[in-house]
Amino acid sequence: MIIILKENTPKEFVNKLTKNIKSKGLQIDISKGARKTVLGLVGDTSVIDREQVQGYDYVDKVVRVEEPYKRASRSFHPQDSIIDIGGGVTVGGKKIAVMAGPCSIETPDQIEGVAKDIAAAGAAMLRGGAFKPRTSPYSFQGLRDKGLDMLVTAGKKAKLPVVTEIMSADKLDVFLKDGVDVIQIGARNMQNFDLLKAVGKTRKPILLKRGLCATIEEWLMSAEYIMAEGNHNVILCERGIRTFETYTRNTLDLSAVLAVKHKSHLPVVVDPSHATGKRWMVADLAKAAVACGADGIMIEVHNDPDNALCDGAQSITPDMFTALMGSLRQLAPIVGREI
Amino acid sequence: MIIILKENTPKEFVNKLTKNIKSKGLQIDISKGARKTVLGLVGDTSVIDREQVQGYDYVDKVVRVEEPYKRASRSFHPQDSIIDIGGGVTVGGKKIAVMAGPCSIETPDQIEGVAKDIAAAGAAMLRGGAFKPRTSPYSFQGLRDKGLDMLVTAGKKAKLPVVTEIMSADKLDVFLKDGVDVIQIGARNMQNFDLLKAVGKTRKPILLKRGLCATIEEWLMSAEYIMAEGNHNVILCERGIRTFETYTRNTLDLSAVLAVKHKSHLPVVVDPSHATGKRWMVADLAKAAVACGADGIMIEVHNDPDNALCDGAQSITPDMFTALMGSLRQLAPIVGREI
Amino acid sequence: MIIILKENTPKEFVNKLTKNIKSKGLQIDISKGARKTVLGLVGDTSVIDREQVQGYDYVDKVVRVEEPYKRASRSFHPQDSIIDIGGGVTVGGKKIAVMAGPCSIETPDQIEGVAKDIAAAGAAMLRGGAFKPRTSPYSFQGLRDKGLDMLVTAGKKAKLPVVTEIMSADKLDVFLKDGVDVIQIGARNMQNFDLLKAVGKTRKPILLKRGLCATIEEWLMSAEYIMAEGNHNVILCERGIRTFETYTRNTLDLSAVLAVKHKSHLPVVVDPSHATGKRWMVADLAKAAVACGADGIMIEVHNDPDNALCDGAQSITPDMFTALMGSLRQLAPIVGREI
Amino acid sequence: MIIILKENTPKEFVNKLTKNIKSKGLQIDISKGARKTVLGLVGDTSVIDREQVQGYDYVDKVVRVEEPYKRASRSFHPQDSIIDIGGGVTVGGKKIAVMAGPCSIETPDQIEGVAKDIAAAGAAMLRGGAFKPRTSPYSFQGLRDKGLDMLVTAGKKAKLPVVTEIMSADKLDVFLKDGVDVIQIGARNMQNFDLLKAVGKTRKPILLKRGLCATIEEWLMSAEYIMAEGNHNVILCERGIRTFETYTRNTLDLSAVLAVKHKSHLPVVVDPSHATGKRWMVADLAKAAVACGADGIMIEVHNDPDNALCDGAQSITPDMFTALMGSLRQLAPIVGREI
Repeated sequence: MIIILKENTPKEFVNKLTKNIKSKGLQIDISKGARKTVLGLVGDTSVIDREQVQGYDYVDKVVRVEEPYKRASRSFHPQDSIIDIGGGVTVGGKKIAVMAGPCSIETPDQIEGVAKDIAAAGAAMLRGGAFKPRTSPYSFQGLRDKGLDMLVTAGKKAKLPVVTEIMSADKLDVFLKDGVDVIQIGARNMQNFDLLKAVGKTRKPILLKRGLCATIEEWLMSAEYIMAEGNHNVILCERGIRTFETYTRNTLDLSAVLAVKHKSHLPVVVDPSHATGKRWMVADLAKAAVACGADGIMIEVHNDPDNALCDGAQSITPDMFTALMGSLRQLAPIVGREI
Repeated sequence: MIIILKENTPKEFVNKLTKNIKSKGLQIDISKGARKTVLGLVGDTSVIDREQVQGYDYVDKVVRVEEPYKRASRSFHPQDSIIDIGGGVTVGGKKIAVMAGPCSIETPDQIEGVAKDIAAAGAAMLRGGAFKPRTSPYSFQGLRDKGLDMLVTAGKKAKLPVVTEIMSADKLDVFLKDGVDVIQIGARNMQNFDLLKAVGKTRKPILLKRGLCATIEEWLMSAEYIMAEGNHNVILCERGIRTFETYTRNTLDLSAVLAVKHKSHLPVVVDPSHATGKRWMVADLAKAAVACGADGIMIEVHNDPDNALCDGAQSITPDMFTALMGSLRQLAPIVGREI
Repeated sequence: MIIILKENTPKEFVNKLTKNIKSKGLQIDISKGARKTVLGLVGDTSVIDREQVQGYDYVDKVVRVEEPYKRASRSFHPQDSIIDIGGGVTVGGKKIAVMAGPCSIETPDQIEGVAKDIAAAGAAMLRGGAFKPRTSPYSFQGLRDKGLDMLVTAGKKAKLPVVTEIMSADKLDVFLKDGVDVIQIGARNMQNFDLLKAVGKTRKPILLKRGLCATIEEWLMSAEYIMAEGNHNVILCERGIRTFETYTRNTLDLSAVLAVKHKSHLPVVVDPSHATGKRWMVADLAKAAVACGADGIMIEVHNDPDNALCDGAQSITPDMFTALMGSLRQLAPIVGREI
Repeated sequence: MIIILKENTPKEFVNKLTKNIKSKGLQIDISKGARKTVLGLVGDTSVIDREQVQGYDYVDKVVRVEEPYKRASRSFHPQDSIIDIGGGVTVGGKKIAVMAGPCSIETPDQIEGVAKDIAAAGAAMLRGGAFKPRTSPYSFQGLRDKGLDMLVTAGKKAKLPVVTEIMSADKLDVFLKDGVDVIQIGARNMQNFDLLKAVGKTRKPILLKRGLCATIEEWLMSAEYIMAEGNHNVILCERGIRTFETYTRNTLDLSAVLAVKHKSHLPVVVDPSHATGKRWMVADLAKAAVACGADGIMIEVHNDPDNALCDGAQSITPDMFTALMGSLRQLAPIVGREI
């Protein structure tokens, strides 16, 4: 950690601050410039509260040298993490994990039909929403517990592990009892810290979506919340960020995939469906995601998108999904991967 | 609601769509342009799921004519709402409500000292955090239940109603039993819909902070979630949005205050402390907030900001607060208000 | 164009407005909802100034049905445009155009060396900056006229057409006389309308970079400025937009490539070097760009990036470029293209 | 300047880099942490190109200690600058400068009528656009030279200095000859560096609007471009930035006013008309701007906004302007200013 002091900082303040820091077991290198003084802290700076130091009137800037996350950092775990989902499915290795399914679970027929189609096309996991975060209280909120049952049943029939979103810690028991394979934390709950702690206490794989306006660092800090409770099975999911551009629902940030894989050992998957909100963009951006190194993709597939109860605009049909899988199978080896 | 169809939309689709819409009790005005066809829906369009219609391949755009919120809308409640906090304090009328106190409750002495100082300066409510949402799992997370007790005690001693943040619905019982006067939903939980529903089931005043990247419409929809459960005692709080500018922690959006008061009858307060993260900006922006019509302000005040356990950088001292109150007392009458 | 009027709009205003609109040769469909009135304008609405209509106090919203651009719109030119650069090079067809070269031209040896290397690797065009837009007046501003000469000479020797940025219309004569093949308008000048008009009066291919915070519509309107003057040889270039994320210099928006190709017939190339500012991200994002359908890529290549006078951080070496070209050659056919 | 090196940086690189830096007359303090090495550069670091250093693969981060601007910095000029406009008008002192007038100059009657009205209400300067930057090539582009004449004539008759926008350096002669008092650089040209240099060669006061997505630092660097040419008469103008919120045309960033006055000695005025695009927001945000310390405001006033050729939606009437001036006259003394 580096502390840059303002011009004309009184000597007493410098003394008080350095004494305070040294009392916490750190060493300090002082560098006096023409006008400003710079303190370099050497040692375990996690004992220093950056915001508190930033609060002193004489402090101009505080710059971190080390990253604020540990368990999520590649420095502490240089090899790529491979998350074991069960049923022979992993996320993070050579094999690209494809998760597909409808936005909302609607009926047993619907979810089982889609499950069968995507399994035939080579998907590794079935996704589907039972608890739906909707902007409006008047929109369809999901089939809830009943939907969860349908999803798990459909997954078993199609021999696909299932991934679905949790919105509240009090549903965790049901998720565990029903046998959900991967628990998703949605973008709007990325900084719902109580929920992060709760899923951190399980050992289930967690799919952590990036918040709509979360920086890469904040996203990794949310992963750290889960890992700090002991659950290291975290899969990150880029799903578009909010920008000034409104033509697409969000702006897919593929450079974030590279950034996260650079800074962290955790696997990253990409969700082009929510990122764009437009069905005709999904396949091309899925290819782009694989081309730039994503460890998996998550795609909304619906057997009847025009009558979907939710997000039909961005769902592709099973036929479009099958065609996409064909392209990805050709593309993956070019970037050293397989599907 | 207006539906704009793409060029060359087949007649059968138009027929199918209009039949579908009419079956829901709506009337349709069709307007054929040179290349595009426009459907104007007349009636209660809340029965139409906009996202589903947007999902049809032949649909170019769907434009809302009516706002998607009702209980929060000024159309349905033209007069300003005045929220009664108890103890003679209201938010939303002629009198500007000033809420002040430390970011975190640290000790009984600290919170009681600050409470006494701000009461003397004329504050209407005491704020203080017991449950703290922090980006890092390694940062101070608040004194939790113990902090809540200290706050309520301090409020009683200083005869000030108290406002404090809830992070999880399972703490609601404690908040109610302890006698918290206003329950705050923080920016990161603005779309934690399960939490919104839970506080909506109480009749306590709720202070709903705007999310870091929430549009004005999304913010009002979150208010609608609370109101749809029957709790109409909602106070909105603008606290800065995330933009590309990083010099300030966030960008305070004062035009949002005007926008929200235009579209909704709910009162709006402004938090310049979190918006800027800089102590020396707080007083000037508080004046700006009052000058443009805010119904209240929320200010972080700490008796020893340089040693605050949290957010010291943005806390002002009791002396600075007293001086600010003096200025606001002069300023308020110029814009037709009082403090 | 659709005009939505506010509740309680007086009849006289509606009459005045409709009379005014009809006097311009348009027809109006009036649709009265429960609370609001909607006017649908049929005919050539380009005679209506949208901002002026938006200005009336009784007008709630004005929604465009037709796009505001014509010459740039795919509606008016359904086939993809293929821009002929000369020397057998085209942009926009099946063949993906790769433009490469240093950020700044520094010496004849440097630019000729890079030109030779990229030509050997299969690049189609040589890029290099002679006039450099720099944030600081104290940074290197380019070799200017002398640099232009070096670039053109290097291009001729390597048999590569050249592309370089113009910053001021008064340099247009020199660009034309020297034989620059493609004139680049930089992101910061995307709405320098006088410059757009000036290059619109030539018939040279123009590479129009997207502004840092330009919407897709504004970008196409800037293309329209050039085309309205008679120059239809416009190539668009996505180079990242400004968002809240600061880890990358900008956020590359690949969904914009799809959006622009959907709405316009103009070819789009992608510049991953400026988008990220990080050398190690360039190749992976170049692959992603090709995978999702870009018509070309623009890459900064420097023979000695660590000593580059400008933007060394994002330049790759000729060896890295050659390896990238190898990957792209494999990848292109999978998406129906070739290099 | 501080350079943070990555882990495992080889000794030879550190030696090469430090030798290189010392050869430029700087001293280096080296601080070795547990995993990373930090170099503190002492001396005139303006000789170091930050981007070049950032380009080395072993460099993790480069942090500036000193600001990159000099002439614009308060460190080099602690007192507030007061810009003399002529005719007894100044910007930057105790007196708040109010600039008002129509978006576009339309007829002599229009501009003279508005000039008379705003002069009577106490405005200090007359604004009006003769050269208009418009998103669409098909929108009204201003009366150009003829409009300039009308504006100057109107200013003389009303005894008000005039301010108007320049879009191209080749019009500078006309602006100077006609006697324009303040030359405005619009938001879209804030980084049109050739135009900045051109107006920097004059000694006329320059009103420099903030770019739509310009950081505070970039804005000050653009002021530095003008000042580096010798023209220190720069007035900054905050006019809203582009964010995800679309309800207002832009988001007015009043904290930027405080930030700029903190970092620079240059005066700052606020334009609430362009920031919001909504007439009914203008007066309240003008009050907020004055309340938080702006040195002036710039307001669009039109005698017949509903028929304005440009931006009528955000223009207020002379009567509304007169009322606003009355409020500001009461408000200014409370914050130690006068009008």
